[in-house]
Amino acid sequence: MVKKEKTKRDNPLFVASLEKGVVLLEAFDEGHRRLGLNDLVKLTGLNKSAVQRFLHTWVALGYLSKNAETKLYRLTPKVMSLGYNFLRGERLVEVATPFLLDARERTGNSVYLGTLYDTSIIYLIRLPQRLLLLEGTLPGRRVPAFCGGRAFLSCLDDTEILSILDRSNRSAITPYTITDIDENMREIATVREKGFCISQQEQLMGEIAVSAPVRDLQGVPRAAIYISARITEWPPDRVESELAPIALETAGIISRQL
Amino acid sequence: MVKKEKTKRDNPLFVASLEKGVVLLEAFDEGHRRLGLNDLVKLTGLNKSAVQRFLHTWVALGYLSKNAETKLYRLTPKVMSLGYNFLRGERLVEVATPFLLDARERTGNSVYLGTLYDTSIIYLIRLPQRLLLLEGTLPGRRVPAFCGGRAFLSCLDDTEILSILDRSNRSAITPYTITDIDENMREIATVREKGFCISQQEQLMGEIAVSAPVRDLQGVPRAAIYISARITEWPPDRVESELAPIALETAGIISRQL
Repeated sequence: MVKKEKTKRDNPLFVASLEKGVVLLEAFDEGHRRLGLNDLVKLTGLNKSAVQRFLHTWVALGYLSKNAETKLYRLTPKVMSLGYNFLRGERLVEVATPFLLDARERTGNSVYLGTLYDTSIIYLIRLPQRLLLLEGTLPGRRVPAFCGGRAFLSCLDDTEILSILDRSNRSAITPYTITDIDENMREIATVREKGFCISQQEQLMGEIAVSAPVRDLQGVPRAAIYISARITEWPPDRVESELAPIALETAGIISRQL
Repeated sequence: MVKKEKTKRDNPLFVASLEKGVVLLEAFDEGHRRLGLNDLVKLTGLNKSAVQRFLHTWVALGYLSKNAETKLYRLTPKVMSLGYNFLRGERLVEVATPFLLDARERTGNSVYLGTLYDTSIIYLIRLPQRLLLLEGTLPGRRVPAFCGGRAFLSCLDDTEILSILDRSNRSAITPYTITDIDENMREIATVREKGFCISQQEQLMGEIAVSAPVRDLQGVPRAAIYISARITEWPPDRVESELAPIALETAGIISRQL
């Protein structure tokens, strides 16, 4: 991916000013809600005059707004529209939503749909049952695939999985995050055997999740569905006996309709 | 807004190539999931070589992907990340989510949070109870403010409201959509009196919704919360007596915490 992107950037077709503009917009990430001119110079490596021009343009296009008092910029709700355009066009989302609602009702737990992008799982649908943590309720969240995407990864061949694991920043998110490549491969082998993946507190203390892959008719992995619960109420064996069959069944129904 | 944007575009700071790139990405909207080179030339008014360069660049940046067989382009899940960055930075969303979950539990109905952008309401949070229609479950959806945002509009002064109504494309979405400006102003006067808005089948046949505005401590309108239900089970007087108090209470609690 990285190599491919480099080649594309060297191509004379590549519009460098579009990339710079996008880099500036992407700088408004989790840790950086509100940014000023100098923050953006530091974060993007662009010079001050370029940052000024791109800021002006994003404001004119409606994607950033400027606070008149603080002179700080922030994203506007307009950025939500792009995600909506993507979701609306995804047959997967359309097919999956009623079955996810059904799984939420039957289990009393939060149910999600996520897909692989580069080395991350991006959640497309999140149906929270209770509020564990705000991030847990928001679509568009990206989590590392090595610890949050083993059900999806288990459908790829080992070369591909190893490439993703290798390119991932495998820092531990909690004391329980499995970061080692060999251990990850063993976990994935277990997922292949059982058909589902149980992940315990790897991303959030107190949270346990069971996931199962969704493949289309050609067998291509398209997404994974997740049912997440509190580990205090749902110890691993209860998750395996009660939630895993529902996750498998839900993933299966969705798969057959793609 | 239109006038202001025009001024910004005439400004020498405006980066025209960024605008062209964004126009191309925005062409992938509801009716246009998959687009080819020639479709994009027609839709954007850009010349073929410009479309080629922007397509190449968006693919390199990861926001579009190309199907090798059909040569058609589509949005990738990466566009979801921008919406996530926006939502994650919104204190409003963080404060509102637990109260929306609570309102969903108490009423057994779908609960939403939307905010005004230009002449549209953009939904930031959507907690579906059942599936009325897929669009009803997706965040980032834009609906016209004149028929879907009267609770929010009721907090603005009349000059501002009239400007929004005037700039809106007020086509009827259903036979019940109130499109006339004077009728809209009368509806908004009723909302100001009662504090909430009941809208019957104006956007979707069979759906009734009650909404109430959320203002911050300075009294600035920030969003509106919506509870939507099936009109067959929830006739207007039942909505007014049972759902409206919960909408008002929920909007009030959120308002006091902003």
